[in-house]
Amino acid sequence: MLINSAMYDDGHVVAEPGLDRIAAALQARPTGFVWVALKDPTDEELTRLQQELDLPPLAVEDARKGHQRPKLEEYGDLLFAAMHLLEDGADGSPQVGEVHVFVGQRFVVSVRHRSDHGFLGVRGRAEREPHLLQLGPGFVFYALMDAVVDRYFPLIDAVEEELEQLEGHMFETGQDRQAVVRQLFGLKQRLATLRHAVTPLLEVTSKLHGGRVPAACTAIQDYFRDVYDHLLRIQASIDAARETIIAATQVNLTLVTIDESLVTKRLAAWAAIFAASTALAGIWGMNFEKMPELKWAFGYPMALGAIALVSGALYWRFKRLGWL
Amino acid sequence: MLINSAMYDDGHVVAEPGLDRIAAALQARPTGFVWVALKDPTDEELTRLQQELDLPPLAVEDARKGHQRPKLEEYGDLLFAAMHLLEDGADGSPQVGEVHVFVGQRFVVSVRHRSDHGFLGVRGRAEREPHLLQLGPGFVFYALMDAVVDRYFPLIDAVEEELEQLEGHMFETGQDRQAVVRQLFGLKQRLATLRHAVTPLLEVTSKLHGGRVPAACTAIQDYFRDVYDHLLRIQASIDAARETIIAATQVNLTLVTIDESLVTKRLAAWAAIFAASTALAGIWGMNFEKMPELKWAFGYPMALGAIALVSGALYWRFKRLGWL
Amino acid sequence: MLINSAMYDDGHVVAEPGLDRIAAALQARPTGFVWVALKDPTDEELTRLQQELDLPPLAVEDARKGHQRPKLEEYGDLLFAAMHLLEDGADGSPQVGEVHVFVGQRFVVSVRHRSDHGFLGVRGRAEREPHLLQLGPGFVFYALMDAVVDRYFPLIDAVEEELEQLEGHMFETGQDRQAVVRQLFGLKQRLATLRHAVTPLLEVTSKLHGGRVPAACTAIQDYFRDVYDHLLRIQASIDAARETIIAATQVNLTLVTIDESLVTKRLAAWAAIFAASTALAGIWGMNFEKMPELKWAFGYPMALGAIALVSGALYWRFKRLGWL
Amino acid sequence: MLINSAMYDDGHVVAEPGLDRIAAALQARPTGFVWVALKDPTDEELTRLQQELDLPPLAVEDARKGHQRPKLEEYGDLLFAAMHLLEDGADGSPQVGEVHVFVGQRFVVSVRHRSDHGFLGVRGRAEREPHLLQLGPGFVFYALMDAVVDRYFPLIDAVEEELEQLEGHMFETGQDRQAVVRQLFGLKQRLATLRHAVTPLLEVTSKLHGGRVPAACTAIQDYFRDVYDHLLRIQASIDAARETIIAATQVNLTLVTIDESLVTKRLAAWAAIFAASTALAGIWGMNFEKMPELKWAFGYPMALGAIALVSGALYWRFKRLGWL
Amino acid sequence: MLINSAMYDDGHVVAEPGLDRIAAALQARPTGFVWVALKDPTDEELTRLQQELDLPPLAVEDARKGHQRPKLEEYGDLLFAAMHLLEDGADGSPQVGEVHVFVGQRFVVSVRHRSDHGFLGVRGRAEREPHLLQLGPGFVFYALMDAVVDRYFPLIDAVEEELEQLEGHMFETGQDRQAVVRQLFGLKQRLATLRHAVTPLLEVTSKLHGGRVPAACTAIQDYFRDVYDHLLRIQASIDAARETIIAATQVNLTLVTIDESLVTKRLAAWAAIFAASTALAGIWGMNFEKMPELKWAFGYPMALGAIALVSGALYWRFKRLGWL
Repeated sequence: MLINSAMYDDGHVVAEPGLDRIAAALQARPTGFVWVALKDPTDEELTRLQQELDLPPLAVEDARKGHQRPKLEEYGDLLFAAMHLLEDGADGSPQVGEVHVFVGQRFVVSVRHRSDHGFLGVRGRAEREPHLLQLGPGFVFYALMDAVVDRYFPLIDAVEEELEQLEGHMFETGQDRQAVVRQLFGLKQRLATLRHAVTPLLEVTSKLHGGRVPAACTAIQDYFRDVYDHLLRIQASIDAARETIIAATQVNLTLVTIDESLVTKRLAAWAAIFAASTALAGIWGMNFEKMPELKWAFGYPMALGAIALVSGALYWRFKRLGWL
Repeated sequence: MLINSAMYDDGHVVAEPGLDRIAAALQARPTGFVWVALKDPTDEELTRLQQELDLPPLAVEDARKGHQRPKLEEYGDLLFAAMHLLEDGADGSPQVGEVHVFVGQRFVVSVRHRSDHGFLGVRGRAEREPHLLQLGPGFVFYALMDAVVDRYFPLIDAVEEELEQLEGHMFETGQDRQAVVRQLFGLKQRLATLRHAVTPLLEVTSKLHGGRVPAACTAIQDYFRDVYDHLLRIQASIDAARETIIAATQVNLTLVTIDESLVTKRLAAWAAIFAASTALAGIWGMNFEKMPELKWAFGYPMALGAIALVSGALYWRFKRLGWL
Repeated sequence: MLINSAMYDDGHVVAEPGLDRIAAALQARPTGFVWVALKDPTDEELTRLQQELDLPPLAVEDARKGHQRPKLEEYGDLLFAAMHLLEDGADGSPQVGEVHVFVGQRFVVSVRHRSDHGFLGVRGRAEREPHLLQLGPGFVFYALMDAVVDRYFPLIDAVEEELEQLEGHMFETGQDRQAVVRQLFGLKQRLATLRHAVTPLLEVTSKLHGGRVPAACTAIQDYFRDVYDHLLRIQASIDAARETIIAATQVNLTLVTIDESLVTKRLAAWAAIFAASTALAGIWGMNFEKMPELKWAFGYPMALGAIALVSGALYWRFKRLGWL
Repeated sequence: MLINSAMYDDGHVVAEPGLDRIAAALQARPTGFVWVALKDPTDEELTRLQQELDLPPLAVEDARKGHQRPKLEEYGDLLFAAMHLLEDGADGSPQVGEVHVFVGQRFVVSVRHRSDHGFLGVRGRAEREPHLLQLGPGFVFYALMDAVVDRYFPLIDAVEEELEQLEGHMFETGQDRQAVVRQLFGLKQRLATLRHAVTPLLEVTSKLHGGRVPAACTAIQDYFRDVYDHLLRIQASIDAARETIIAATQVNLTLVTIDESLVTKRLAAWAAIFAASTALAGIWGMNFEKMPELKWAFGYPMALGAIALVSGALYWRFKRLGWL
Repeated sequence: MLINSAMYDDGHVVAEPGLDRIAAALQARPTGFVWVALKDPTDEELTRLQQELDLPPLAVEDARKGHQRPKLEEYGDLLFAAMHLLEDGADGSPQVGEVHVFVGQRFVVSVRHRSDHGFLGVRGRAEREPHLLQLGPGFVFYALMDAVVDRYFPLIDAVEEELEQLEGHMFETGQDRQAVVRQLFGLKQRLATLRHAVTPLLEVTSKLHGGRVPAACTAIQDYFRDVYDHLLRIQASIDAARETIIAATQVNLTLVTIDESLVTKRLAAWAAIFAASTALAGIWGMNFEKMPELKWAFGYPMALGAIALVSGALYWRFKRLGWL
């Protein structure tokens, strides 16, 4: 589906050509560039675009199939980039969409997949700053990438917050350890999704500033360094969260074992108390003819007292040992 | 066994020379190239081929013995590549076959080992696109590699799917934990087989685009970059699956320990209930002469009531603690 | 908030211009440089400073928002650095503040965030050594960094000391294993905070000596090598502490399991002793008519003796096995 | 002990000079080279050799002391290499011997330590192929290294086979888990020995082909690439086996815990069944005067029936839960 | 404290100047060099030395404070090196001392900290080989480093020996598992100390041979390669020992769990035997009026026989299961 198609010249919209009028529009205005946005495009749309802009077949094939890892490929002067769009899904796990960007000398095409979250804000912001739009397709590429990366922050923040809460509660007694394991495992999976979006993109941005930078991006490499820096920060957060999760998982296993140890101790203590009582009662329940105490007037209360005494003594001992 | 032997010129089959007529055929048509396919070849076949095409002895020795790791070796102008062929075995674990490819200036030879899955489709597709076949032996090499790599995708997809199912069930109570361990271990082994096919091949393809590329592949390095990209995606999937398996194994151990803890708790609770009953019954089973309650009219129901009361109270208490 | 603003010439303070007089002051004295210190600055203060000193917008944006990772960025001749300020928080966990430093050819600006611990000492020390201050903004940059890094040492020392104590006690019996886990986990988190301050700063300082060094720092690269060396030492301590924590966590899990094993053994031993007594008493409590020993004059003492004997024998056996 | 000393010229043995006649022999035949083999040499033998061939003192010192890690050192034109000889010891663990090789322009000296397995086969094979022997000392060096590396294969194969068997049995119930642990640990140690032989040798061989190759080996670098490839294959096998061992160890721990859990369940189930019976018997063993059922004609069978019923019900329940 | 101060010329001692006469001595004999050894020097001694030899302040500061990591710093022509001195402490854990070495064009200064083990032997050996001493300060530097590294070998040997003993015993039953954990943990800490001495020194020595080597060491780089090789060997031993410890710790945890499992099994078995006896005795202890067997002449022996039979059968069954 075509979302938008606009020709910019000198930082302002000057035309909105249809998909099959782009080449003509570019020819008509030799100083402008075109910004095309597609969403879940049909094969036909992509084929037309490929013909209009002479896009490389392998890259168009990638954009058609989707499910790419974040990457940057150069086809002569043209750049082809793939990025992951992460959105908070219903159940807390991030939904992975994609955006592919073709950056030519006089056009930029963005193809969005499996994501309802558009880039209208990016377009708006760019149009409000004509002096930046004048920098051409490279700047649009930066603006899109900046928007994509900005959407990663709330996801990692949510993970960190949940993790911090979990850390606070983990050592409290009576925790549902299984729930903790499940939560830690879920956080780990969310981090993995984030990392698979961030790490390859880091590599992409590192090629867009510093050393040999593709021509389209040379003028604005400080901006790409800024995106790179944001990604590094996210990466550092991911690594830190990941280490915490690993440590917390290990800690939780130890706590589970300690819990079990405590239960075994209580079981042992109570078993001992009842077993002692039962053994005493059993002794006085024997059928020997000559058991003098059975005939004593206060034999029974004495026996009850003895049982209570032994039980009490054991209870007190186990209490002191911390078993009860 | 010779599967096929065809001479191509200008993108079309022009002859099908036998193994001992290849050199002659090449001399007869100076602009064509030969594509030979062998399967589990005899020593004699390889020796003849070596003489016809002047193949390097060390490479032919590798192709004869098989059991090579994926690799790319240059012998002057000739390329020798080994790749793993993975097929789903009967019991879910991938069967490892091999294909070795010799890429010369005017010939390409593929030697398949321990795999029934041929490359007829590759040949068919290539012959339907004569403009690509015109690119020569390098393109055939690419087409074979692309077919090999395409067959890795269903294997990693199967692992991911099985893993996803497992994740969903793992936290359900009453799971057969041993079956989970066994399944995770099996998945890990399958991933290992995949990784040993993919990782060295990644290194191979990285040498076929970008920097100094062997002459036979220079013209089509964008295609090899595409294969490289596919391998990177598989690699990323393998790494992700591997991390999930490690985490799930760890989680499973914790769940086993939690399970045991729960069993111990239930054991402890029921033991306490029965032990209390037995101790009470033992007390009233003692043989003291003076035990007034034994003579009461409602002594027995009272005793039963006391036992029921104590048992009930304990049951209620343990229920509240979550031990039962 | 403006903390300080001083112009130095020939190593001595010659003026204290306000925020909006800095450019003028620099023009008035072509051989001097300005040192400005801000703390949690307002947007207005930063905007004014940016205009006066022509600072790069992206760097000023970073200084405004804070929460940067330690880094060094070059904008032409200007250096922008971010460092973490670590202070011991109330509960032992380090509080993370930040300082951002702009190093120009004729000025140095430090912006402190979320930290009450100022750099008065640095200023004092620098002013007492005019021959070093003559080296210009680069030297001030070094002095600030040196002060920041010096404050990391007590934090890692505290971790090491706590860890050493813990190691000493860990193997004593009767330890509260849960407290040990909690402490180890806390130490790990503190180390993580430290590492996130130190590791990227190491990368920063490695760019300030040896190879291509920014112009402002060339003359004093031996000093930066010294800071680098301090950071390497902290890094080595962090790594060592981290390994110890990992090993101690593993050890603690084993100790917990051993503890449980000991409890199970004691439980088993006492259960056996009481069960044997109860079984014997039960046998003599049976109601068979012909049980000769029941009629013996010393039947009862004999029974008690038998019970005592069996219990004693079991006790002695378990003692020897180390179960009691 | 001197094993052999032969002068080759044009690929054939032309003399067998003693240790103190080597220099003379070399002078007598300017186109030949000498191949000397020593085993556990005396100091005197090494000293003489050093003088005859002008060997570097540090290298001779290494060859005298032994216990070197695999390495390659260049002393001007001379190469000094150390390799590990692995042989299957009596108890399955590999015995580590060593061979040191000095490769000069006109001589090659091999010094074998702590190994009874000589290189007669190498010599025989080399002499049967005079055209290869003509390549000089470098080829002898290759032939020795190839023989050393070929002896690593059966060791890694044995590990893989044992591991495969173990994997097959591990999940069977009733396994002796301690034996499994012990076996896994033993395999790990054997792998470690192999890795310490292979990994540094990999580094050595990587210097003998491709980039800057020592003069003695330039002509035959394809052969060294072949050895390098063999080592890579062994290395890959070692890594795979190592991962499997780590995973299997982890799995085994989980299986042990599951085993324990099963035992605890059975214990709990039987304890419950007997405890219920005992409690019921205890109740009917109480001495209350008014217990009507005690007087019933079928009281006793009824009681036995009740006990059997309760026990049976519990048994059935536990069976269904999978505890029995 | 000044240990020694000697001027060498042509390989022999020619003077022993005091700390404040060194510069004068050097001027008096333009072809000699001075070798100064200090131990735990006072500030005053260091200051004087700094003035005499014009040492760089930052390096002298390091030598004064001590507690450096092993490193090599170049200050123009001067080299400053720090190395760890390890000595076996009373309790088996290595004591860490330090030696700092200043290597100038005409002097070498060694500063020893916290170590009673001097370098007299080094001096003696050097003086006995004047032809080596003629190589100048660089050779003295090598001799010191060689002596330092030689003292690491007995420490790693002791660790390996202790580890080997431990491996042999670990699988024996009845081991004190806690003692094993403690010992493994202790060995790990000792290895850590060793590694912190060895790994950075490896980096130091790698700069002293091969590529760009400081002028003072160029002539003797083969010697430094020898030290480098020794360090590599120690490093390999450390890595191997570390892996063994990690594996052994893991194994020990499994063995602890297996031990517990065995105890639980024995507990379960004996509990079952006694519980069965008690249940039977309880049944014949019931007070039903009509229990025919109670009146049989051989009722009691029969009951005892029944109890013995059941117990025996259970015992036999558990024995066969391996629970007893």
